[in-house]
Amino acid sequence: MIPSFDAMWADLEPVGRDPRGGYRRFAWTDADALLREWFAAEAARRGLAVTVDRSGNQWAWWGEPSAGTKGVVAGSHLDSVPSGGAFDGPLGVVSAFAAVDLLRERGHAPARPIGIVNFGDEEGARFGVACAGSRLVTGALPAGRALGLTDADGVSLAQALGRHGRDPDAVGPDPEALERVGAFVELHVEQGRGLVYQNAPIGVATEIWPHGRWRVTLAGEANHAGTTPLADRSDPMLDLAALVTEARAAATRHGVLATVGKVEVDPNGVNAIPSQVRAWLDCRGADPDAVAAVIADLGGFGPQSESWTAATVFDPALAARLSGVLGNAPLLPTGAGHDAGILSAAGIPTAMLFVRNPTGVSHSPAEFAERSDCHAGVAALADVLAELTR
Amino acid sequence: MIPSFDAMWADLEPVGRDPRGGYRRFAWTDADALLREWFAAEAARRGLAVTVDRSGNQWAWWGEPSAGTKGVVAGSHLDSVPSGGAFDGPLGVVSAFAAVDLLRERGHAPARPIGIVNFGDEEGARFGVACAGSRLVTGALPAGRALGLTDADGVSLAQALGRHGRDPDAVGPDPEALERVGAFVELHVEQGRGLVYQNAPIGVATEIWPHGRWRVTLAGEANHAGTTPLADRSDPMLDLAALVTEARAAATRHGVLATVGKVEVDPNGVNAIPSQVRAWLDCRGADPDAVAAVIADLGGFGPQSESWTAATVFDPALAARLSGVLGNAPLLPTGAGHDAGILSAAGIPTAMLFVRNPTGVSHSPAEFAERSDCHAGVAALADVLAELTR
Repeated sequence: MIPSFDAMWADLEPVGRDPRGGYRRFAWTDADALLREWFAAEAARRGLAVTVDRSGNQWAWWGEPSAGTKGVVAGSHLDSVPSGGAFDGPLGVVSAFAAVDLLRERGHAPARPIGIVNFGDEEGARFGVACAGSRLVTGALPAGRALGLTDADGVSLAQALGRHGRDPDAVGPDPEALERVGAFVELHVEQGRGLVYQNAPIGVATEIWPHGRWRVTLAGEANHAGTTPLADRSDPMLDLAALVTEARAAATRHGVLATVGKVEVDPNGVNAIPSQVRAWLDCRGADPDAVAAVIADLGGFGPQSESWTAATVFDPALAARLSGVLGNAPLLPTGAGHDAGILSAAGIPTAMLFVRNPTGVSHSPAEFAERSDCHAGVAALADVLAELTR
Repeated sequence: MIPSFDAMWADLEPVGRDPRGGYRRFAWTDADALLREWFAAEAARRGLAVTVDRSGNQWAWWGEPSAGTKGVVAGSHLDSVPSGGAFDGPLGVVSAFAAVDLLRERGHAPARPIGIVNFGDEEGARFGVACAGSRLVTGALPAGRALGLTDADGVSLAQALGRHGRDPDAVGPDPEALERVGAFVELHVEQGRGLVYQNAPIGVATEIWPHGRWRVTLAGEANHAGTTPLADRSDPMLDLAALVTEARAAATRHGVLATVGKVEVDPNGVNAIPSQVRAWLDCRGADPDAVAAVIADLGGFGPQSESWTAATVFDPALAARLSGVLGNAPLLPTGAGHDAGILSAAGIPTAMLFVRNPTGVSHSPAEFAERSDCHAGVAALADVLAELTR
């Protein structure tokens, strides 16, 4: 039993419900503000000092980290995709607080500070760039580009930050915040069934596949659906159909994943031939050359790269050590991007723990982990933090 | 020169601009309220008495119509599709006011009343049912069904009416309003290039093709785009691609028009396999059996009928008479639905005049008619009203 986990989980349960099911916890919205207040309150309740870096990521510290005495940080994010699940992100943050509680119950005296982080805008659901908070603080995402990103209503990130009391001019790399981080451990619900097959509640990540996003703009000519002969049409919906079909075929051919998950149609009227269809293509796999081959095969559609993240191989010695601490927990890769990948690429020793997901489903209201596995995750994270702050 | 046309056209030009281009004049919105105020003001300026029927359609009367002395009504609608053009609808209303001005300048003394009508919600862009205003007043659309229709934000027609000071309980057939209408003439920009080919500024409609709308709900399983093997996916975007492709093929095969112009994706996230895609199919053509064959061919997608309108053949004697009045103006059919079709089906002698459209484009910001052709339309409408009220 880990009562503090259960209490925190219950507190978060009603925040940011999506009317279509699951959660809609987009960055720099009212729901996000509630989640940030929750984070600050949980930190305060434990006497942890909260700092907010230049890009708005929240850090709660047990002890005082410095460049000389770097800390060990656990955490994840609290935002969600549209109609997202309860676990992707919050499980890592809640487990970090609960792990601190467990360490204190055990009387653990950390030899170096322990931190808990809430990275902002990990999903990129609102402004289109994933891991925006960690990419900004590490400098992987230029502030100028980020601030001009706009949401579906045309609100820029700079405007959204301003509305939530943040100074857009402050956004950017924050070496002072990063130099306090000696190691980062992100606990996350598994997004797949690797641990189900291995019959284990907890695993340790080896790598994140390379992955990218491309935008495809399909132009047509708006016209009346009832009066325009088929031969006279320039209908971009037909091009969308071809894109979706060919993307799946190319992904199958090259052994990677490709998905068209987001589509915007202008003007999106029942009796109007669209003037334009915009589609987003997500493509990833173990082999970056295979991903590139898919994009090359789709070259006729003019895909524009929105983001590309090379493979992240987590520190192998650290992964092996943590697996050992956890009784030889299984080692496994993932196709999903995470803030842990961004920090690893920035040179910070980084590891990830996965918690078993019975169906493998994520980014969906059906995303799930058994409570007993969540508790096992807290215990594993506490063991890992104890090991790293011995 | 028809100065009153030009002045009214300039007044309407800024109302209800769509940020993506063209107009967004949806029923029972602030833009629509401005247009309704404009209509009432133009009527008042001319000393025409305005009545509003039970469903909110506006009628302006020169003279006092009754069941014994039915009037001749001209007009159209003021609402638009998303990113619609300036002409579809407003051209008919503005031309009707300008035609009254022209008749008065000529000293015409109508033998029976002349009316001008603004039918509400002709495009169905907000609540999904076209010609809602005329269908409600004639009883072709049951009030109970209409009031429960919802827009993209979940607002029902009943709520929207309430917010604009209309009583939803009053909505329904209005025989008193209809019995005043002895004949209806709708002037409309042509949605095609029939008049371009015939080198004529004005034409007279013979019929409206049968047409219908179907909704297709494609179900899938939401999941993470980066972690779900292709073989484990249930991705409804692939079904959308098949629907779009097969709809075009079936339409070609059967010689009719089919269009997928509107698509909604849930959750519409770049890295999420959709849980559901909804698509709307518009299908029409001269032969209703050919339309039915297309829908039958797409039966595997489970199309649900949202509306079906049988062919409208306008009163052939009236069409021939008006063509004669207009110096043997060309007679031509159309694939677009209109309030004129609804009134004709309700047994009211009805005619349509078309104004030449250089590109044939409509339902687009590029929709256009030369000003000289618009003026010719006003003159033609005045001649027709003079003939019918001699």
